[in-house]
Amino acid sequence: MSTICAISTPYGVGGIAVVRVTGAEAISIVDSLFQGKQKLTEGQARRAYYGHIVRNGEVLDEVMVTLFLAPHSYTGEDMVEIACHGSVYIQRELLQWLIQAGATLAKAGEFTQRAFLNGKLDLTQAESVADIIASQSKAEKDIALAQLKGGVSQKLQQLRDQLLQFTSLIELELDFADHEDLEFADRNELQQLVQTIQTELETLIESFQVGNAIKNGIPVAIIGAVNAGKSTLLNALLGEQRALVSNIPGTTRDTIEECITIGDKLFRLIDTAGLRATEDQVEQMGIERTKESIQKAKIVIEVIDSTNPQRLSFTPEKTADKIWIYAYNKADLITQNTENQQDNFTVQISAKNNQIAPLLAILQNVFSDYDTSSVLISNTRHFEALSKALQALKQLQQNMANHLPEDLLAVDLHDCLDALGEITGEITSQEVLNNIFAKFCIGK
Amino acid sequence: MSTICAISTPYGVGGIAVVRVTGAEAISIVDSLFQGKQKLTEGQARRAYYGHIVRNGEVLDEVMVTLFLAPHSYTGEDMVEIACHGSVYIQRELLQWLIQAGATLAKAGEFTQRAFLNGKLDLTQAESVADIIASQSKAEKDIALAQLKGGVSQKLQQLRDQLLQFTSLIELELDFADHEDLEFADRNELQQLVQTIQTELETLIESFQVGNAIKNGIPVAIIGAVNAGKSTLLNALLGEQRALVSNIPGTTRDTIEECITIGDKLFRLIDTAGLRATEDQVEQMGIERTKESIQKAKIVIEVIDSTNPQRLSFTPEKTADKIWIYAYNKADLITQNTENQQDNFTVQISAKNNQIAPLLAILQNVFSDYDTSSVLISNTRHFEALSKALQALKQLQQNMANHLPEDLLAVDLHDCLDALGEITGEITSQEVLNNIFAKFCIGK
Repeated sequence: MSTICAISTPYGVGGIAVVRVTGAEAISIVDSLFQGKQKLTEGQARRAYYGHIVRNGEVLDEVMVTLFLAPHSYTGEDMVEIACHGSVYIQRELLQWLIQAGATLAKAGEFTQRAFLNGKLDLTQAESVADIIASQSKAEKDIALAQLKGGVSQKLQQLRDQLLQFTSLIELELDFADHEDLEFADRNELQQLVQTIQTELETLIESFQVGNAIKNGIPVAIIGAVNAGKSTLLNALLGEQRALVSNIPGTTRDTIEECITIGDKLFRLIDTAGLRATEDQVEQMGIERTKESIQKAKIVIEVIDSTNPQRLSFTPEKTADKIWIYAYNKADLITQNTENQQDNFTVQISAKNNQIAPLLAILQNVFSDYDTSSVLISNTRHFEALSKALQALKQLQQNMANHLPEDLLAVDLHDCLDALGEITGEITSQEVLNNIFAKFCIGK
Repeated sequence: MSTICAISTPYGVGGIAVVRVTGAEAISIVDSLFQGKQKLTEGQARRAYYGHIVRNGEVLDEVMVTLFLAPHSYTGEDMVEIACHGSVYIQRELLQWLIQAGATLAKAGEFTQRAFLNGKLDLTQAESVADIIASQSKAEKDIALAQLKGGVSQKLQQLRDQLLQFTSLIELELDFADHEDLEFADRNELQQLVQTIQTELETLIESFQVGNAIKNGIPVAIIGAVNAGKSTLLNALLGEQRALVSNIPGTTRDTIEECITIGDKLFRLIDTAGLRATEDQVEQMGIERTKESIQKAKIVIEVIDSTNPQRLSFTPEKTADKIWIYAYNKADLITQNTENQQDNFTVQISAKNNQIAPLLAILQNVFSDYDTSSVLISNTRHFEALSKALQALKQLQQNMANHLPEDLLAVDLHDCLDALGEITGEITSQEVLNNIFAKFCIGK
């Protein structure tokens, strides 16, 4: 494999920047440009060396170079980190010099891809690196970090190993096809195992609802009649919390939305612009937009004017997976709140006066019954592969119930094994890999 | 001094980010949050350690921590570099954890300020660090790097040491004021030395013209009659070269201007917006703007329509310090160029067809007779102090010529010594220091 290089720190001007080089030639290439007390080719692992980057007598910069020797590096190959001054000019030039000295410019995610190819990380762990880098909230980072530690992989590996054992036995039966009654694989045991695995898969698949919401921000719709104070509430929420921009290069988020962190989680306000415009829209368009927002949301905040408690002019569909909050606004303008029902999801607020604490308290507690350090699926690719595995398992159960022959059961088992293997990268195509690593930033 | 911390890499999302901690407590503070095979308090200098940042059982991130022990560090104090994943969330949180563990958030430039206070760098060297970080071209970076290596300081130190010796002798004479004829300091030698130093100072002061232009971009005015093709040329220049944004946080440039690098230098196109608008302006306003642009420029490109070779409607002032280029545009539309005078600063171009090579060649050679690795003054503060020193020296010469007594000569000498000492920071006030380091980015 070629030796690659990239700027690994964020783009721009800073105190320092780090350029990474990895591959068989990493140390000799950097050494050819390095002048210090120590030749890097005779340097020690995990040791930082002070010197200058020099070519034909021209000094580019003063640097600290740290060596990592294969296999004890991020990529599993020899790797060199060059910390230079954080000038954009120097960073670019250093890359150019490295390329002219024999390195190739790294593609997005290529360092992590090499870590995967060299067996330092499995595929879910590699994917978690991109998630960690893109994380904007504690909950999101915790899910990704658990995945990096191998939580998802271990769980799946366990299930897959058990299935694999049965598959071998079933295939053994195929070799003895003449002996019709020979059963190496106990059908009752298989039945039980399949049932156990099915339950596990269903739990994982179900966790995607939460995992995905936490990863991409929990979608919140703010709805209500005209003049109930939706915009004022939105501003109060945004003002209260640190607003974050979510269109960060190298992440999977494509659109700019207003996002806020409350407690340890990120909330994504759905189609805020649309909502704002709604008040000027004709009745029917307003209703359509509101319905769409509700559909996309996990949390709906229905804002009601306490001084004129109109409800929506249509009956919204309140599915069980949504949290519906009744926010009685302008609470400062009325003396009696008794008429509003006092359940856990009904709050009195005054958006104008930034009195929204009871609403924040509810948002803060959303999904708090989920332990983010447990295994949560947050990756759409994993979700789809798990769903495929579950489907194969259901097919298997049906075929077993119909007493179909071993070879057909083996097909179902292999479908399930393949789907599970895709997740950790044991079974994978170059195309899938390219897709995954293209979402990374360059330099990781 | 307290222990301080800051994110030292550029702001934003990247593969990795580096947080630096420096001060007496740096290692123990980081160690209190670090879980790895090795206790950092027992770690070795310049060694990288793998581990996790953990507090009360909560894992923040997987990190590599590198130790630098006093006095062998950038700041001269114990220093720790923590390389974490480049998530904005993690970077912010890591800072928070460090602060809660006893560190203080570093002010802009505070790491370099400590390097200065601990004698690792003198003041010109410290200033050069900010210049290196802000540099956008080779020439600019080379000047700053020469300054970091102590070029300016050594030169000034030498001059100052010689003057200091004479000053001591003159002051010795003051102690023997009774003996009127006693002269420890040979007046002829002093006269010679002052002359030599004056020449050196004048050379340095003169180099500011070039140094400052290279540092801030060489100012270029594109002028010419309406429809000569000024805007087309501007676009051709910007298209040809990589355009750089110059309003980078932490640099000294305040305005957004169009900047281009040609060869190894940065060029700053003066008041481009104004020039563009000029074509729609009434005659007199156009002339005023053009005059202003010429005044600010080191290089004036006068664009002339070859098909209709009108010159400016007024006679511009061509001072000796300006390079005046006559660019005969639309050269593709005419067959005979003989009428245009063919000197070194007259070129035939076709901006529309991007045929601007002869113009680029001239720009590329600007200031090429200056060796950027020699000592060039690029800092306004240095320029002002040098001018003050020169003035004191001239006063000294006059007073010597008038045979004024030792005590008055000593005053002049001290004025000169103080001015020189201000540059390297031997004589300085907290206010000056604060001013200098406030221009740095945080984390350096």
